Amino acid sequence: MNAQKTIRLETQGRGTVDITAQVQSIVAQTGVTVGICQVFVHHTSASLMLCENADPDVQRDMESFMARLVPDGDPIFRHTAEGPDDMPAHVRSVLTQSALSLPVSEGSCQLGTWQGVYLWEHRRHGHQRRVTVTVLGE
Amino acid sequence: MNAQKTIRLETQGRGTVDITAQVQSIVAQTGVTVGICQVFVHHTSASLMLCENADPDVQRDMESFMARLVPDGDPIFRHTAEGPDDMPAHVRSVLTQSALSLPVSEGSCQLGTWQGVYLWEHRRHGHQRRVTVTVLGE
Amino acid sequence: MNAQKTIRLETQGRGTVDITAQVQSIVAQTGVTVGICQVFVHHTSASLMLCENADPDVQRDMESFMARLVPDGDPIFRHTAEGPDDMPAHVRSVLTQSALSLPVSEGSCQLGTWQGVYLWEHRRHGHQRRVTVTVLGE
Repeated sequence: MNAQKTIRLETQGRGTVDITAQVQSIVAQTGVTVGICQVFVHHTSASLMLCENADPDVQRDMESFMARLVPDGDPIFRHTAEGPDDMPAHVRSVLTQSALSLPVSEGSCQLGTWQGVYLWEHRRHGHQRRVTVTVLGE
Repeated sequence: MNAQKTIRLETQGRGTVDITAQVQSIVAQTGVTVGICQVFVHHTSASLMLCENADPDVQRDMESFMARLVPDGDPIFRHTAEGPDDMPAHVRSVLTQSALSLPVSEGSCQLGTWQGVYLWEHRRHGHQRRVTVTVLGE
Repeated sequence: MNAQKTIRLETQGRGTVDITAQVQSIVAQTGVTVGICQVFVHHTSASLMLCENADPDVQRDMESFMARLVPDGDPIFRHTAEGPDDMPAHVRSVLTQSALSLPVSEGSCQLGTWQGVYLWEHRRHGHQRRVTVTVLGE
């Protein structure tokens, strides 16, 4: 059995959006009890992250770390036509995940207690983002 | 056909644990000959890594690199309540993998000659860690 | 339904090779219309990347960023027997992906407009690389 559904999100610029509940709801609708759930983002300047979901400081710290590691406007970059935050967004995307693969059992994604599923917008301005959830199993 | 099994591991603090044999043993038990094996860690301060398995210096060097890239006690971090190694553990987890997706053929994970499957504990102290292996295929 | 095929590539040293068309062709041949496509590299000094495919500067910038983040000959590394670019190649591999998981619908991988699938050779000299594509679905 397999099923697929696309989520469309409007981001508000750089930062994370918790999509855990949307992903779990799609999995529940498929009727798959044991299998694999794949979450995929169709962009190269936004990515996906499994992250601690209890203290909002964790996501802020993640953003601070990335902003220092891959600074906007870094003179090392030649691809600057779309702004100082575009190439850093591509690098952040490559250093994190375009796809998350999650185990399904008892009809839902078996996340750890502190694991949340986040879309991470890496551009400064908001964008429309498309995420596809595919569930395979029995 | 699909099958799922959970492994519980007791880590000894920061460092890697080779779980290749355990994963291969689970795959063999499923009877799946061609398909996909997903290995998933249910935590945000430990992660999974496919790494060179011949020279133990490779894993030591990996640890040295991460310790420099994401130093414990970095003043950039606000999430410090659980100790100076907690937020760095979350960052290391995001920069590596919470899930590995491996090809199965002829009844086992087709790893390259030098590829081993490792759990990477990012906290200084030992923890109980849970890893779920899901196998889909025929 | 599932299907699996191995691609062999000869790289020309450090840099990327676009394998999008080869992956799509394998998916088309399987007859799977909805499911998951897994692309896996059987090496620890080359990796896979979903990357912007319109401006070649993006891949050059990605390479510049990695060359600075994980410099060849870094004295922090002990594993140097295979040359100054070997341990950096292992680190680059761990910071990026050994496997890409892509959604299949309407008989092909549903990539975003600007997403290409690349093999990233991290060694300075060319190597023979093996990539396995596994497709599961209906």
